[in-house]
Amino acid sequence: MIPVAILGGSGYTGVELLRLVARHPRLNLVGVSSRQYEGQAVSKVFGALQGAVDIPFSAAEPAALAKGAALVFLAVPHQTAMAAAPAVLAAGAKIVDLSADFRLRDVPTYEQWYAPHTCPELVAEAVYGLPEFYREQIKPARLVANPGCYVTSVLTALVPLLRAGLVEHEGLIADSASGVSGAGRSAKLNLIHGEVHDNFKAYAVAGHRHTPEMEQELSLAAGREVRLTFTPHLLPIDRGILSTVYARPVAGTDEEKVRACWQAAYEAEPFLRLLPKGVLPATKEVRGTNRVQLAVFTDPRSGLLKIFSALDNLTKGASGQAVQNANLMLGLGETEGLLDLALTP
Amino acid sequence: MIPVAILGGSGYTGVELLRLVARHPRLNLVGVSSRQYEGQAVSKVFGALQGAVDIPFSAAEPAALAKGAALVFLAVPHQTAMAAAPAVLAAGAKIVDLSADFRLRDVPTYEQWYAPHTCPELVAEAVYGLPEFYREQIKPARLVANPGCYVTSVLTALVPLLRAGLVEHEGLIADSASGVSGAGRSAKLNLIHGEVHDNFKAYAVAGHRHTPEMEQELSLAAGREVRLTFTPHLLPIDRGILSTVYARPVAGTDEEKVRACWQAAYEAEPFLRLLPKGVLPATKEVRGTNRVQLAVFTDPRSGLLKIFSALDNLTKGASGQAVQNANLMLGLGETEGLLDLALTP
Amino acid sequence: MIPVAILGGSGYTGVELLRLVARHPRLNLVGVSSRQYEGQAVSKVFGALQGAVDIPFSAAEPAALAKGAALVFLAVPHQTAMAAAPAVLAAGAKIVDLSADFRLRDVPTYEQWYAPHTCPELVAEAVYGLPEFYREQIKPARLVANPGCYVTSVLTALVPLLRAGLVEHEGLIADSASGVSGAGRSAKLNLIHGEVHDNFKAYAVAGHRHTPEMEQELSLAAGREVRLTFTPHLLPIDRGILSTVYARPVAGTDEEKVRACWQAAYEAEPFLRLLPKGVLPATKEVRGTNRVQLAVFTDPRSGLLKIFSALDNLTKGASGQAVQNANLMLGLGETEGLLDLALTP
Amino acid sequence: MIPVAILGGSGYTGVELLRLVARHPRLNLVGVSSRQYEGQAVSKVFGALQGAVDIPFSAAEPAALAKGAALVFLAVPHQTAMAAAPAVLAAGAKIVDLSADFRLRDVPTYEQWYAPHTCPELVAEAVYGLPEFYREQIKPARLVANPGCYVTSVLTALVPLLRAGLVEHEGLIADSASGVSGAGRSAKLNLIHGEVHDNFKAYAVAGHRHTPEMEQELSLAAGREVRLTFTPHLLPIDRGILSTVYARPVAGTDEEKVRACWQAAYEAEPFLRLLPKGVLPATKEVRGTNRVQLAVFTDPRSGLLKIFSALDNLTKGASGQAVQNANLMLGLGETEGLLDLALTP
Repeated sequence: MIPVAILGGSGYTGVELLRLVARHPRLNLVGVSSRQYEGQAVSKVFGALQGAVDIPFSAAEPAALAKGAALVFLAVPHQTAMAAAPAVLAAGAKIVDLSADFRLRDVPTYEQWYAPHTCPELVAEAVYGLPEFYREQIKPARLVANPGCYVTSVLTALVPLLRAGLVEHEGLIADSASGVSGAGRSAKLNLIHGEVHDNFKAYAVAGHRHTPEMEQELSLAAGREVRLTFTPHLLPIDRGILSTVYARPVAGTDEEKVRACWQAAYEAEPFLRLLPKGVLPATKEVRGTNRVQLAVFTDPRSGLLKIFSALDNLTKGASGQAVQNANLMLGLGETEGLLDLALTP
Repeated sequence: MIPVAILGGSGYTGVELLRLVARHPRLNLVGVSSRQYEGQAVSKVFGALQGAVDIPFSAAEPAALAKGAALVFLAVPHQTAMAAAPAVLAAGAKIVDLSADFRLRDVPTYEQWYAPHTCPELVAEAVYGLPEFYREQIKPARLVANPGCYVTSVLTALVPLLRAGLVEHEGLIADSASGVSGAGRSAKLNLIHGEVHDNFKAYAVAGHRHTPEMEQELSLAAGREVRLTFTPHLLPIDRGILSTVYARPVAGTDEEKVRACWQAAYEAEPFLRLLPKGVLPATKEVRGTNRVQLAVFTDPRSGLLKIFSALDNLTKGASGQAVQNANLMLGLGETEGLLDLALTP
Repeated sequence: MIPVAILGGSGYTGVELLRLVARHPRLNLVGVSSRQYEGQAVSKVFGALQGAVDIPFSAAEPAALAKGAALVFLAVPHQTAMAAAPAVLAAGAKIVDLSADFRLRDVPTYEQWYAPHTCPELVAEAVYGLPEFYREQIKPARLVANPGCYVTSVLTALVPLLRAGLVEHEGLIADSASGVSGAGRSAKLNLIHGEVHDNFKAYAVAGHRHTPEMEQELSLAAGREVRLTFTPHLLPIDRGILSTVYARPVAGTDEEKVRACWQAAYEAEPFLRLLPKGVLPATKEVRGTNRVQLAVFTDPRSGLLKIFSALDNLTKGASGQAVQNANLMLGLGETEGLLDLALTP
Repeated sequence: MIPVAILGGSGYTGVELLRLVARHPRLNLVGVSSRQYEGQAVSKVFGALQGAVDIPFSAAEPAALAKGAALVFLAVPHQTAMAAAPAVLAAGAKIVDLSADFRLRDVPTYEQWYAPHTCPELVAEAVYGLPEFYREQIKPARLVANPGCYVTSVLTALVPLLRAGLVEHEGLIADSASGVSGAGRSAKLNLIHGEVHDNFKAYAVAGHRHTPEMEQELSLAAGREVRLTFTPHLLPIDRGILSTVYARPVAGTDEEKVRACWQAAYEAEPFLRLLPKGVLPATKEVRGTNRVQLAVFTDPRSGLLKIFSALDNLTKGASGQAVQNANLMLGLGETEGLLDLALTP
């Protein structure tokens, strides 16, 4: 059993890490912090974990958490993560950072979308933690930047197609919808049940922070600058992202070529699920799992490709992917602890 | 009080008509049919109508229903509506048809998307029932074809802009999501709670029947053929459509010009709501109302216009619009019986 | 048009009052306060009210609000209401208080369950605002204490039966469930969507503040002290209370006698709906309405009566009942502005 | 790996069995039938099982399914189960029957509540499959009758207390609410999303078929006839039952004694969770798990005990308990394949 710790265990990504680590056959939780619940039993705060996590929340001391841990998950807000990272590395632990702090390779871009970067020297070292595209770099890494939830859904759909030159790099649109857990576990008026339930709306339509992250990776895949039109929406469900991506095929590309491209890219991938022809992704079918479902259709009116990508924003979109990265970094089987199937219904 | 009747009162558009007519200050319900519930009290089937509708469901006899009614709402499936229309007109009653049977001006197009048309002679007479664009033709009409729900949300967003030449007629995309009541009130496995709840998915992505209807009206507005990429999704909510429309602005068009165009087109419209700058439509804010909420943003990466349009698929998207049409056809105030405000929450 | 004002217009009972007053044919809103939104347009905060309420939120100054108003609704928390009441009355306005401050006739009981009472001299003057039982006292009252939501559901079920001596006064149990809007519109972690959605649990099981209010009125109806076992639960829905009441019938009481008793008590009541035999109440059928649905069944194993009572906690359970009281106090028709029917679905 | 089969794999209990067996470390699915989907791939029907179940649905032939299987789960309706059981046993396979056919020890009682029993000779042999109370009888059994979902929630709460004589055997009331998956996966109008969503109502209030099953086991626990007042309600959630049980304590019983009694009865039980004092069960915390959460409070007004019991109707209430029984019958670890934790949120 390999000892791991969690900095920030009381947000939704934190408690999802707790669930996954508690059931993981090779990981042993040696510490979990929470400013809000310091000193309280984890299972008192999260009844679902009764009997599965038997340590209390500790103070948010990165160095103390890292001592005795082979790897620390940073499940804290951006800025807090970059403040904690050096002490964790200095203590000899590896890091999977679930915040945005080390995702953007270009520090000025980070600072334009977020805030001043206090730890730019680690940016170059950080590996972008999308195992399907960066597996070999992730394995030896000390610091892995876990991708954003929307980002993972869009990149798994588009990166192989851009690499293969099957779709135009211009005019890409990602119209996405996410369950409200993506907004975190915090006491905000716009998150209460009465505001979200039985409702649907867009948000952050003039610029969501996941945009530069998607553009960074799409540009790398295309070999040239890609600009993406991205529109997130808020769904009245717990978990799940569905991205509907519109892409212009290059001459000669059809549904079959897209499917063949994905097939080649993902045939050995345990979590990427190309659906049978004619079947559409559904967020409920990936809820609580580390899977991505993919499908493609050609619009008969415009010839545009409609690409659909579904995942669970807290699992493959956050904490499941973090455990997948940790498995790789720690030399474990990549799928260990990550084979849960979605409940029906 | 003007006598009206409803052919098909037990689907969701039928019961919404019952609710609206029951509270209408000038309409008096003299008949409502249902094959499924013939002979049963309306309020026994729909508890919400107890004390408000005191007649039983009758047999589905168009001529009998039309006798004594000034206007009959056809809230039956396509094909059934066209079979009933001639008898209703022959009995001297006007018609608002909520089915698709008279929406498409081109009979071959109808037959391509639906089925053989048994009543083509009435197609030319039928007026397309979107009062914001065809008010003067609706007033004297005998037969009004009430628009589709998705269609109304997209047309209210785009028609003024195409008429004014503010957006390109090519590359239009409508990415829409609808509450499940849009699929009707029928015992189908894909509609049961366990399949819909906490789920989100696209459907009919390779061709939804509302597409030709949208293209017909968009083409008329643009003065040339318009092809639309349309993708519907299913929301786990009762009511509500949100359409996110992507349109390429012509040179010189910006958000302000779009807003000014809508302002000019809709300033006297009681149901069209241009939201304050920066505010986004929400399906919950129009639930149970005859309103459309509109907003526009410019995507800073691509320059595309993102246009948002929200309505209630059963009210402005169906039965509320039908009553609005009936008000016009019967010489009543256009807003009578249609001023309900949405519940919060 | 009669001028009215609302102290506290941004909670869920406040915005429900705004909706009802905005559509009321005889009331004119002359002021509405909100500490949180002072100075902002009502329709900016509540998109559903765009075009229907055109004044901004004012400061929470009871005397200023009361000036020019014939009646002020107090939609503020307990303690705040009693602090505001004297100034409103001194300004010559009547009051419907939606808080608990004047519901309990016995000040020590109030102080045991709530907090010290700073305005006991008005307690004796206050009339308990359940029109079905206190209509004649409400009409001339200056100060009406609007009942609690759970309370209204239980009293409408039991008061006529206790008055008629049809059920034992001992052993009464009310097992109730409420939509989460009953917990108010505030940024609390236990109210966010992720905590409430797809969940069901009891709360306040060792003593909910509505208990003494129910016991007060049940005791008056029975003519002796009644103790009630009350258990509230939290439903993942917007609105609605269903109370399942267990009562021991006295010898000779059966379902028919219960129904006849209700029939006699409520035959002239516009909002009390005795359902057809065999039909059960449903919260959705009263959503957004001022109705109560009632039904009774005899348990074949125990002989206990199972009584079901459904209402909308924000309408008949709060703001609708408040408008009903205001109608009576202002000499208007009791049902004016309160005849909305529930949406289906 | 031990071969097992499922008769009836396309209802909600069937697909839950598929999920649990697919992830079970010691069970191997060798057959699953479905009349509706015969010949189709399981993962085509249930997208959540893609890659996890790779056999198609077969015909519903009990003898053929049993051949090669050590145990067959019967996940078919009552009457169908009793028709299949003899052939399965004759083929040498054991049975866990999820229907009601072998739960009632008294055949006339079965016939009063259900239908004529065509297989009474097996009733005496069948063991009631609640492992917490009948573990030693289950281990050697050929035929185990898996309990009803409501029944499991009520029995786990009350059986130890009745055995210990801590509560009166008279006046017991179970007020329960269940997620709609308890009604099965079938195309019925009362199950569609529009009818269930945002709604709450009671059903089967004059006699639910789980009543005699509860009374049978409660009577055995009490050593005398027990009659139960039972009221089920329908929740707009996927999964979960919460039972609120009212019981009169015998003199000297208090919360602590109840807790101590449960503690003694359940201290070695892996799935029974006595919550910390003051904490209430929540259906969401047991969703998808084989757990039962228990809590008790004393009502301060009446002295009644309020007992709360939560479980997942498809897992501990059906298929999880069935796998627990199978584990016992096949000599496996009782918790194998059953240690999933609930998602938060």
